Amino acid sequence: MSSSLTPFFKPRGVVVIGASTSPEKLGYGVARNLIQSRYKGAVHFVSQKSGTLFDRPLYTNLNDVPDPVDLAILIVPTQVTPQTIEDCAKRGIKAAIIVSAGFREVGAEGAALEQQCVDVARKHGVRLLGPNCIGTLDTHLPLDTTFLQPPMPAQGGIGFISHSGAFAAAIVDWAREQGFGFSQIVSLGNQADVNETDVLPEVAKDEHTRVIVLYMESVSDGAKFVHAASEVTKHKPVIALKVGRFEAGQKAAASHTGALAGSEAAFDAAFAKAGILRADTAEQMFDWARALEDCPLPRGKRMAILTNAGGPGVIAADSLETNGLLLSQLTESTLRALSSYLPPSSSVHNPVDMLASASPESYATCLKILLQDENVDGVLVILPPPPMFKTENVAEKVIEVIGNFDKPVVVALMGSTLVEEANKVFQRAHVPTYPFPERAASALGALAKRAEYLNGLQHLPTLELNKSKSEVRRLRTPEELIASYGITTTPIKLARDENEAVTIANELGFPVVMKIASPDILHKSDIGGVLLNIKSAEEALSGYATLLERAKKAMPLARIEGVHVQRQIPEGQEVIVGAVRDPLFGPLIMFGSGGIEVEGLKDVAFALAPLNQTEAQEMIRKTWAGRKLKGFRSIPPVDEESVIDVLVKLSLLAYEHPEVDEIEINPLRVLQKGAVAVDVRVRLRA
Amino acid sequence: MSSSLTPFFKPRGVVVIGASTSPEKLGYGVARNLIQSRYKGAVHFVSQKSGTLFDRPLYTNLNDVPDPVDLAILIVPTQVTPQTIEDCAKRGIKAAIIVSAGFREVGAEGAALEQQCVDVARKHGVRLLGPNCIGTLDTHLPLDTTFLQPPMPAQGGIGFISHSGAFAAAIVDWAREQGFGFSQIVSLGNQADVNETDVLPEVAKDEHTRVIVLYMESVSDGAKFVHAASEVTKHKPVIALKVGRFEAGQKAAASHTGALAGSEAAFDAAFAKAGILRADTAEQMFDWARALEDCPLPRGKRMAILTNAGGPGVIAADSLETNGLLLSQLTESTLRALSSYLPPSSSVHNPVDMLASASPESYATCLKILLQDENVDGVLVILPPPPMFKTENVAEKVIEVIGNFDKPVVVALMGSTLVEEANKVFQRAHVPTYPFPERAASALGALAKRAEYLNGLQHLPTLELNKSKSEVRRLRTPEELIASYGITTTPIKLARDENEAVTIANELGFPVVMKIASPDILHKSDIGGVLLNIKSAEEALSGYATLLERAKKAMPLARIEGVHVQRQIPEGQEVIVGAVRDPLFGPLIMFGSGGIEVEGLKDVAFALAPLNQTEAQEMIRKTWAGRKLKGFRSIPPVDEESVIDVLVKLSLLAYEHPEVDEIEINPLRVLQKGAVAVDVRVRLRA
Repeated sequence: MSSSLTPFFKPRGVVVIGASTSPEKLGYGVARNLIQSRYKGAVHFVSQKSGTLFDRPLYTNLNDVPDPVDLAILIVPTQVTPQTIEDCAKRGIKAAIIVSAGFREVGAEGAALEQQCVDVARKHGVRLLGPNCIGTLDTHLPLDTTFLQPPMPAQGGIGFISHSGAFAAAIVDWAREQGFGFSQIVSLGNQADVNETDVLPEVAKDEHTRVIVLYMESVSDGAKFVHAASEVTKHKPVIALKVGRFEAGQKAAASHTGALAGSEAAFDAAFAKAGILRADTAEQMFDWARALEDCPLPRGKRMAILTNAGGPGVIAADSLETNGLLLSQLTESTLRALSSYLPPSSSVHNPVDMLASASPESYATCLKILLQDENVDGVLVILPPPPMFKTENVAEKVIEVIGNFDKPVVVALMGSTLVEEANKVFQRAHVPTYPFPERAASALGALAKRAEYLNGLQHLPTLELNKSKSEVRRLRTPEELIASYGITTTPIKLARDENEAVTIANELGFPVVMKIASPDILHKSDIGGVLLNIKSAEEALSGYATLLERAKKAMPLARIEGVHVQRQIPEGQEVIVGAVRDPLFGPLIMFGSGGIEVEGLKDVAFALAPLNQTEAQEMIRKTWAGRKLKGFRSIPPVDEESVIDVLVKLSLLAYEHPEVDEIEINPLRVLQKGAVAVDVRVRLRA
Repeated sequence: MSSSLTPFFKPRGVVVIGASTSPEKLGYGVARNLIQSRYKGAVHFVSQKSGTLFDRPLYTNLNDVPDPVDLAILIVPTQVTPQTIEDCAKRGIKAAIIVSAGFREVGAEGAALEQQCVDVARKHGVRLLGPNCIGTLDTHLPLDTTFLQPPMPAQGGIGFISHSGAFAAAIVDWAREQGFGFSQIVSLGNQADVNETDVLPEVAKDEHTRVIVLYMESVSDGAKFVHAASEVTKHKPVIALKVGRFEAGQKAAASHTGALAGSEAAFDAAFAKAGILRADTAEQMFDWARALEDCPLPRGKRMAILTNAGGPGVIAADSLETNGLLLSQLTESTLRALSSYLPPSSSVHNPVDMLASASPESYATCLKILLQDENVDGVLVILPPPPMFKTENVAEKVIEVIGNFDKPVVVALMGSTLVEEANKVFQRAHVPTYPFPERAASALGALAKRAEYLNGLQHLPTLELNKSKSEVRRLRTPEELIASYGITTTPIKLARDENEAVTIANELGFPVVMKIASPDILHKSDIGGVLLNIKSAEEALSGYATLLERAKKAMPLARIEGVHVQRQIPEGQEVIVGAVRDPLFGPLIMFGSGGIEVEGLKDVAFALAPLNQTEAQEMIRKTWAGRKLKGFRSIPPVDEESVIDVLVKLSLLAYEHPEVDEIEINPLRVLQKGAVAVDVRVRLRA
């Protein structure tokens, strides 16, 4: 369905089908909100009984509703919904919000009815939002298609998309007290037609939306979502709260990669790929959103703390570190300026503690000094009620300074009644406040992450697409498959006589390992059946004879097939590299510790294919196995670049081969130069 | 100083020295609060000028103040503070709160003045609270010695002890809006005399205090604190917010244990030992405190979720898991009862989703069913404003049910204006509410942790104190030291001839390893200078000869001292066990992965000595090295009990030997039966 979603967001006229004059009915609430929202387009009501509602006629027939009308809000019994959609189509209405519940969420019968709605809509090119949703809300247009209790939320720059109507309703009420507003709100309900991926770019298009928050319970089409979100996050920040983290039950998997990759790892990887910030809690999501809405992004992670009390300053310093930020090292000139301004017992080193006597002027002057410091990328101002001054006076002075700098400033405004007025002053000036330093620091952390993401975008390495894709369609062995993507393997070849042994050894390159090849000799070493470090054709020649001789002597009856020749791989570090096809998001690449550590410690990282070099590097950085590649204590460094190369190539392989369900190189031995796949397993789609 | 702290908490009369008639002065604020708090004892004011204040005389001489008076609040210039303390002593006042700042916190001169105050106080047996503090507050007595803006905080069961006055002041203001109260508040200031360890048992004694929250920036005496807190937590829960987590700089250390043990590990270990719950943020501390104040403790970790909306239910389920709780498996009879009561499209499995139409009666009925379920240890009720009912009506119905059960119920009351009335109803009924399911789940988690701690107390194994303590005073080698505590070592002994080799081998027990002993032969294996698996006296005899022969043949000029004999230790798992003396808390015991993992992965756990078996087991459980002891994949299980034994013994050693700064067994090889210290290092106090 490619019909436009515009009527949902910018309708010329709206009709409520199922409007009601009974205040306790949803059909009344929707009508009331449409009128009270001061929507400038046409508003019409259709009802079973004629009469008036809010001084407008109640039409009993949709066809009587005059133009313009291009959005219908349906609050009709479930059974008549499909027919009503058809009526809308005939009336030329191409967008319908189905508020009513009682569809898929109540069982098979409801699901069938929902499918009927979709079928009718598709037939006539009508787009549906819902059913079982609370509609949409635009504070700037303005337009309120919900039945939520007035007043409408305050105007703001946060676009809010929610899979849960109850969650959205509670947040709207909570936001009122918290003092923040929204640009748009979209409740998705059952997503019979329009889903989160459809709506995301539409909300992003809205000029008033500066940041988008996404409450997600699932994803409709993982790949499409990642694609759509990646486009959005280039321009506007997106924060997601994805719920349903813990899954009951485990799935059968053919590899470590398969066993360790879960839906949560896939969502994490998808959000990372799409540049979406993932919040842990609802409160955190909105803490971050308010900072992203109002603050310029920091150039780096070095933050200063300005406080009038030691304790909260220490809390803030702790929290900066927890959120991946750094305490700025203030320049000498900053320290001098602070020293000459502040009383001698103040602390001029970051956190800057002005002491309890700090006046509004002290706050303003010191903040200015800090923001002028080239080592300061942002400031966390801590403001418990100053014992000798009004908090709002501090707010006013501080705001004047903030406006003159292109650096983020967030405020830990501690208290409630004593800081109420100050809070309003900050809100009006679009300076985000938080009741505790910990939450302010978390917000600064989100700003830094967003800045880091945008910086990364500018330095994206180009991904070289494999040109020989068509040639590898017919994979024969796992080794051949990965070799076709340029990953080094260690083939084992059977030599049937000494000359063949020499040929193979020459072909593989010296040194080689030679092993007696016999189905009857299990413990080859025990009978001297393994020769290491064969360095020349001569040694290979005599080695073949030696092995056969030893085998015959030790086990005269054993069947001898010849000798296995394999390139001898030098010592190195062993890691695991794999890919597993996630049902939602496609190939998920894993990197981590090999051996028992992979499962025991879960020392692994995931990312979505295809990977670029930066993403591969990030996976390495996240794991102990990866950090060790650079060398650690007695462990010598190995070729990290070669691992990045294997990760990128394997991700490309997985991306280009949908028939590969799981593939795992375990171990990948990383050498001083290069990396070799010692063993590789593939599971194809059944 | 052993004088009583009672006058601080239950004074018969209070005098404000430095009372002021100027409303902007602290000396006015303190006088005002004393009067307005309706303190029933005598209140007197001393000032430089005579006159009246709040209808009471201003005395110009402390000696004119009539009895009874046993607590003085000093708001006088720093220079005259020592003299004023002396005046108090002479007047028979044995407790003084020094509100004024300008002492140790402003530098050397202030520190000297503070010391003067302490000296005078000690001389006369006066106890001091502060300086640089905001005093004390008791809402039940009532008594308010602070200058905080009225009104006084609401009455409640939370005792609040704070190292930071600014933090305490901000919390008091914030608590008003949050709707919770306090029993007592104590601001400690510079702790020139009275510190957190002194105050903790006093606040715990208060009958109105049901839970204690502790804002800590440091500890005065670690061991005393742990001892005092351990006594308190047996009866009342204590939650601490310890700030200053991140320390700049690293210290030099002689062992892995020393390098990895930091002040934070020590605080964590101390809190664990003392049974104190450690909160991560200020908000979390009070979220937990409100639940611990009002809820019965759960018998287990199995929680049910009751909701009228799917989304928040999923958030709650995630959060239960995050907080170490479990989703109850509801019994068949519960499922039947819910099914027969709720509409068919509801979800009767935990989380129980009654759908948006849920009435106050639905909430009450379903909550009752859940609380009756033997598999349910507590319930998280999710309550966004129900579309068709008043939230406060739900609150009223739910409260009736909660009172009939001895199980904890917390409420995620989502929204603000629409739930305001409901919030008040819950507050009056002492049912803790939280704006989001995540915070409600965290509070349930704290209840479960508290219950677990108390259960553990009842099953404390007795610690066998080492009786031979005096015998090990004169330690000679590290091996002898640990052996004296019954830890198995592998001494290496030098045999100077073949007979001695046999004697030593017999003494150590077979099998043994024999190695040529020569300062000139570095790579012993290369010349065949190591013999493994010597099983008998005969083999030892001939082994000696063989080694000497080989050495002479390979390196004729090498000096031969004889042969080193060591018991051959079987294969096993290698771990690291150590102790380091923390400057605050004394010996800190470490357990974790040996080899490079110890530093690379920081797979270690810490606990304070002396350990009991349960604590040692907990350390093992926390680490991958420990979990592996039970066997993992191809790794066979080893003797976990023997590691517990070594940990307990080593902790006793460290506890009994203050001269040992660091001791580390690395590796401890854990066998199928027993564990052997392969190498041990000790650093003694300089």
